[in-house]
Amino acid sequence: MSLRLKAFGSYRAGGRPVTVTGEPVRRIAFTDITHYDVDPNGTFLTESAYVQYFTPADRNAEPPAVLLHGGGMTGAMWETTPDGRPGWLHGLLDAGFEVHVVDNVERGRAGWMPGLWAGAPLLRSMEEAWTLFRFGPPDGFADRRAFDGQQFPVDCLDEVAKGFVPRWTSTTDAQVAALRAVLERVGQAILVCHSQGGEVAFRAAAGAPDRVAAILAVEPSGAMDAVADLATIPVTVVHGDYLDTAPIWRDLAARWTTMAQRLRDRGGRAAIVDLTRIAAGASHMPMMDRASDRYLDAIIADRCR
Amino acid sequence: MSLRLKAFGSYRAGGRPVTVTGEPVRRIAFTDITHYDVDPNGTFLTESAYVQYFTPADRNAEPPAVLLHGGGMTGAMWETTPDGRPGWLHGLLDAGFEVHVVDNVERGRAGWMPGLWAGAPLLRSMEEAWTLFRFGPPDGFADRRAFDGQQFPVDCLDEVAKGFVPRWTSTTDAQVAALRAVLERVGQAILVCHSQGGEVAFRAAAGAPDRVAAILAVEPSGAMDAVADLATIPVTVVHGDYLDTAPIWRDLAARWTTMAQRLRDRGGRAAIVDLTRIAAGASHMPMMDRASDRYLDAIIADRCR
Repeated sequence: MSLRLKAFGSYRAGGRPVTVTGEPVRRIAFTDITHYDVDPNGTFLTESAYVQYFTPADRNAEPPAVLLHGGGMTGAMWETTPDGRPGWLHGLLDAGFEVHVVDNVERGRAGWMPGLWAGAPLLRSMEEAWTLFRFGPPDGFADRRAFDGQQFPVDCLDEVAKGFVPRWTSTTDAQVAALRAVLERVGQAILVCHSQGGEVAFRAAAGAPDRVAAILAVEPSGAMDAVADLATIPVTVVHGDYLDTAPIWRDLAARWTTMAQRLRDRGGRAAIVDLTRIAAGASHMPMMDRASDRYLDAIIADRCR
Repeated sequence: MSLRLKAFGSYRAGGRPVTVTGEPVRRIAFTDITHYDVDPNGTFLTESAYVQYFTPADRNAEPPAVLLHGGGMTGAMWETTPDGRPGWLHGLLDAGFEVHVVDNVERGRAGWMPGLWAGAPLLRSMEEAWTLFRFGPPDGFADRRAFDGQQFPVDCLDEVAKGFVPRWTSTTDAQVAALRAVLERVGQAILVCHSQGGEVAFRAAAGAPDRVAAILAVEPSGAMDAVADLATIPVTVVHGDYLDTAPIWRDLAARWTTMAQRLRDRGGRAAIVDLTRIAAGASHMPMMDRASDRYLDAIIADRCR
């Protein structure tokens, strides 16, 4: 690869102050030689998004692409693939897009605040990923026996699992607010979201449709009923293979179709890109699949405008 | 800015599997429409480091620089400064260095595992940062009244605080192991570390001195007694201003001097770069100070070889 950048860097978007009071001071050893009293009371800034952006020197005429990860993952999911190839971040830059990669509230470099949110943080097991991401049958996990024709490089499953981060299920409102703050800063964006990020993206877009030039939703898993506020935005839903392997995927596939139809019924523009038309065997993680480059090219070409 | 990259991307280094058993299955709502049973048992891969690397097209003849953040921070601390200027990551790339930016175990995109490590995770308050990072006197926090001549842009303190992440104090061994795995992969590196990252860097380097071409330690806060295994590595300690404002800094300043002398006594090479010679008013975060570019230039020029 070779890439000429006009600019790159990072910023924080959104966030709110939280004040802690009434907690006891504790003596803490921070390194082998630094021990000091820590006052856990004070002011904290939390619920912001971390965004890393890249502007190619040869930029296309499109709005910037804002990439929003799915649940239990971070913006790193768009970078180098598990088998070491350039990811969709690279592909979008090569195509001339300015790209903003989000780590949303409580994920990755956005940071998190102990004790702030309801419920326990959940970390995804490799076994759950194996079935939920449709890599193979449940009893295939142990020896990495994938579905026939699977595009995901299952011998590199470890690399993906190392990238899993805990997630709360009570932070969606905060994530929507932070993504809205990202959109305010970017101006107008093509919103590329994945899985649980779909709920966040659809809700943020519905609240600021003038800020969203298009939505590319890769197997989104939420917020697909309230289409009224999305009718001015071209929506492309992208999905992979093996959708009949579990009720959750059969249900979501039906919802993708329904959402697209409802958008059209309201005069909106909606398309569904079935990645199996490009290459059979797409998993829930087409940005990591062996055919990831071809999948991205097809999405860029066939998206709804 | 303009930057031509030969390569960039990310990888994971180190890590170990953890198996969870005996926990009850729970019904969880992940988005507004996806509710399913989650089995918290299974296999997890944790304690790896996330590394993002950049290789400039016009690369210099130096070993790659590996950047290790301090406590409660992530690799984002080396990027864009709080007041929006290119950070030391950019400066090192402009100088032709290949740069590997680490999020070490349990920080940022490296992820963390609930319940795994001893003790509670600590999030730094803005008040603690104000005094510990030597931005100003304790009673100056409320109205951002900094020390005279302070180089840190205190009106942008919010941006830094948004980047604070919780940290455990029981993960140093795991962080040392993960940094060792990074060094294994990089080959031979110039290790640039900050604050609590100093303890991790010195210990990792002592265990693999052939992998470390030099250490640039910005106000390191640990592991400075066992110099025997570091005597073959040129060590540069970099420090800022206002070291007489608190006992912790007076103590550490004395240790930096002692460490350098001990290294020299063993035939090693050691230098101390006092940033006040470049521009007075350096804080604990010289990579974020207004004079950050000049500080980096001085460190590159005056480092011990």
